[in-house]
Amino acid sequence: MSDPRNIALSYARQNRDRFLEDLKDILAIPSISTSDEYKPEVLRAALWVADHLRGLGIENVEVMPTKGHPVVYGEWLKRPGAPTVLVYGHYDVQPPDPLEKWETPPFEPAVRGDHIFGRGTSDMKGQLIATLKAVESGLKSGQMPVKVKFMIEGEEETGSTNLEEFIKINAKKLQADICINPDAGMIAAEYPTITYGLRGLAYMELRVYGPNKDLHSGLFGGTVHNPAQALVELVAGMHDKNGKITVPGFYRNVRKSSKQEHEEFKRLPTNKKFYLEQTGVPKLWGEPDYIPAERVGARPTLEVNGLLSGWTGPGTKTVLPAYAMAKISCRLVPDQTPEEIFKLMESYLKAKAPKDIRWELLLLNHSGTAITDVNCAGVQAMADGLERVWGKRPLFRREGGSIGAVAQLQQYAGIESVLTGFSLPEDNIHSPNECLHLPTWYKGIDSLIHFLFNMKG
Amino acid sequence: MSDPRNIALSYARQNRDRFLEDLKDILAIPSISTSDEYKPEVLRAALWVADHLRGLGIENVEVMPTKGHPVVYGEWLKRPGAPTVLVYGHYDVQPPDPLEKWETPPFEPAVRGDHIFGRGTSDMKGQLIATLKAVESGLKSGQMPVKVKFMIEGEEETGSTNLEEFIKINAKKLQADICINPDAGMIAAEYPTITYGLRGLAYMELRVYGPNKDLHSGLFGGTVHNPAQALVELVAGMHDKNGKITVPGFYRNVRKSSKQEHEEFKRLPTNKKFYLEQTGVPKLWGEPDYIPAERVGARPTLEVNGLLSGWTGPGTKTVLPAYAMAKISCRLVPDQTPEEIFKLMESYLKAKAPKDIRWELLLLNHSGTAITDVNCAGVQAMADGLERVWGKRPLFRREGGSIGAVAQLQQYAGIESVLTGFSLPEDNIHSPNECLHLPTWYKGIDSLIHFLFNMKG
Repeated sequence: MSDPRNIALSYARQNRDRFLEDLKDILAIPSISTSDEYKPEVLRAALWVADHLRGLGIENVEVMPTKGHPVVYGEWLKRPGAPTVLVYGHYDVQPPDPLEKWETPPFEPAVRGDHIFGRGTSDMKGQLIATLKAVESGLKSGQMPVKVKFMIEGEEETGSTNLEEFIKINAKKLQADICINPDAGMIAAEYPTITYGLRGLAYMELRVYGPNKDLHSGLFGGTVHNPAQALVELVAGMHDKNGKITVPGFYRNVRKSSKQEHEEFKRLPTNKKFYLEQTGVPKLWGEPDYIPAERVGARPTLEVNGLLSGWTGPGTKTVLPAYAMAKISCRLVPDQTPEEIFKLMESYLKAKAPKDIRWELLLLNHSGTAITDVNCAGVQAMADGLERVWGKRPLFRREGGSIGAVAQLQQYAGIESVLTGFSLPEDNIHSPNECLHLPTWYKGIDSLIHFLFNMKG
Repeated sequence: MSDPRNIALSYARQNRDRFLEDLKDILAIPSISTSDEYKPEVLRAALWVADHLRGLGIENVEVMPTKGHPVVYGEWLKRPGAPTVLVYGHYDVQPPDPLEKWETPPFEPAVRGDHIFGRGTSDMKGQLIATLKAVESGLKSGQMPVKVKFMIEGEEETGSTNLEEFIKINAKKLQADICINPDAGMIAAEYPTITYGLRGLAYMELRVYGPNKDLHSGLFGGTVHNPAQALVELVAGMHDKNGKITVPGFYRNVRKSSKQEHEEFKRLPTNKKFYLEQTGVPKLWGEPDYIPAERVGARPTLEVNGLLSGWTGPGTKTVLPAYAMAKISCRLVPDQTPEEIFKLMESYLKAKAPKDIRWELLLLNHSGTAITDVNCAGVQAMADGLERVWGKRPLFRREGGSIGAVAQLQQYAGIESVLTGFSLPEDNIHSPNECLHLPTWYKGIDSLIHFLFNMKG
């Protein structure tokens, strides 16, 4: 027990129940960043994080304003000569809709069996608290091996729009040897995972305008192009029947995955059976030349995230709508950029949209792609930490999601990120009944403590 | 003034202001039949109509239950030997959405200039009250020339689903020489109009199911067929690029309009310019071989009335939705039937729908097509009534809308309908700021009084 690492681990073990209570505290705040209505709650979550950091003994804690939601900064630098770890996290969450599908209310965290349920449990308040608790275990046991800084944002779920500017301005203040980013999740509870590649994102809204008001479909049907029909025609034309994207130029800058990468994808347990089980569909879909894990990790996609037009309530309304809207997002891979994809989509629409409707395309948010060097010290420190707790080497994968901060820290501050996390594919991220597997979460805290001590070198 | 007809017309003139107050009364009841939530209000409107009929001296007034909203029946038979006129009307209205587009609240009727604004002003509480006021002018002035019966339903806006059964059961009780149906509207304020053909309706809901829950589009995008995408592909495939419907067999039973009919369509003032002005679109759309009035009057259509899937609020949610829905309605012409069209749509979906999604198609409501003999006594009586007030012969047209009652009265009770009305194309039927042109409305009341006296023979 005289090993500093074991003292910190022992502290974590003794405080498990309180750690869970702290997690419940922040889960109860509906910090939904996608909706203006929740702005005060998002701020409340930022203040909660700031207070919590101060309680751990973190210094110079600031709630730093941006054009959107604030970033919580803090630092503890009292270990001269030791490396600096930057902790990234986000305190915002996705909307809980559809509300009626939740078994217990999304912002009343509830433990059932091995899981805690609530919006943000897994994405990512649970991951954020795990990291803070690893730091707490170092600090409060008096054994903290490294310097630490915090950059906890409130706009990850809206594409980290203002984080880019924040990182540019504060690049010097943020300087660190590695960023630990626990927002990436695991392949399964028995497979500790490090993510070394992330897809980028271009999230767009396509609006189609037809007549100047909703019309009676009997009195006007057959004389004007229905904007809902024009919309479905435009969106349907974005894929061929094999699931390949047909927007001209879309694949132009896609970097081919190497033979070695292809072999690595084949070794992942996220095989066809996994995706069938996770999604409940009778048959998978997608580019036939790539296996599912590769389609998610190394291939770009174009997904319809939302559709809205006309009458959507129960029963009938014989309306020829004035307006139709689709939310469409593309996941991008190196060397695609969101700006390029947005332009290609605009060109597609310019060429394809009929002249009898009006349309506009908005880029609602965007983030770049990112690949981390798997041989850097931070990744090795985390890999060892995971191995010590799980008893096996972690899997390395490229992942389908997008985390704006990773590309931005690389680009503007030269800081690499080590991406891990303890959320599981069955945790219903972005869906009703989001949950967190608590046994995995406690193992995560331990492995993050190991990571901090491994970083000491 | 000793002419009974003039005595009745004079009564109407003297009571104009009160007629308008009575109209405002019923307009204030939000009798939205498409939504269960408003069921008590729909009943309130039925009771209002029943009380109002009793106030006019109508006898045997009953609020007759159906499986849905009730039918108000009443009769006045104290003119032995005179013909019997059945008055058709509906006391239900469309939903007022989108609410925020109304200048004044939809159920607080407001007179501005020559118009009264509110949901149902034009479709069709205004038309119903005009007819009741014509009857009142006959009865209260002691000059009523004919026997009269009333069948006022509460489900027109949901497809008159239970009226069919009602007419079957009560065919004998309803027997009349003609039905006056003022739900058909005018081409323009200066063109009195009789409608002799109505399109039928098959209103469907297509539901597409994908994964068993909403998924994270980053973690699962590229592996399962997005149901919103599958939906837009299926719906886009229902038209070719010229606006022709491509559902196999769709046009099989369409009766060709005669050369004479085509010439009549060409004479209508509802020309290309009219549709461009009414809709505000830069360019019309539809089957190129037919002029717009013919496309509305004599050709079937397939319209998207609503679309819903995934995230439709402001901003972004990176969801791969579990579900997508489209409301689709077909306007039908002789000799198409709703049942046939529903089967063809099912066959289309069976052939086209991919195997990696699940779908279902519901027939939400339906009504048959109807053509009235323009030479029957009722039509001639109405034509003369309109000519006396407007000083010109009415236009005869086939119309794009559907009124279930017309086909059902023909089929089950052998009663022909004369279709007219005093709503105008610019009245925003089914849209925000629905209104009624009051000078036209008063002329309508007068012409209906003439109709009653003309029916006397």
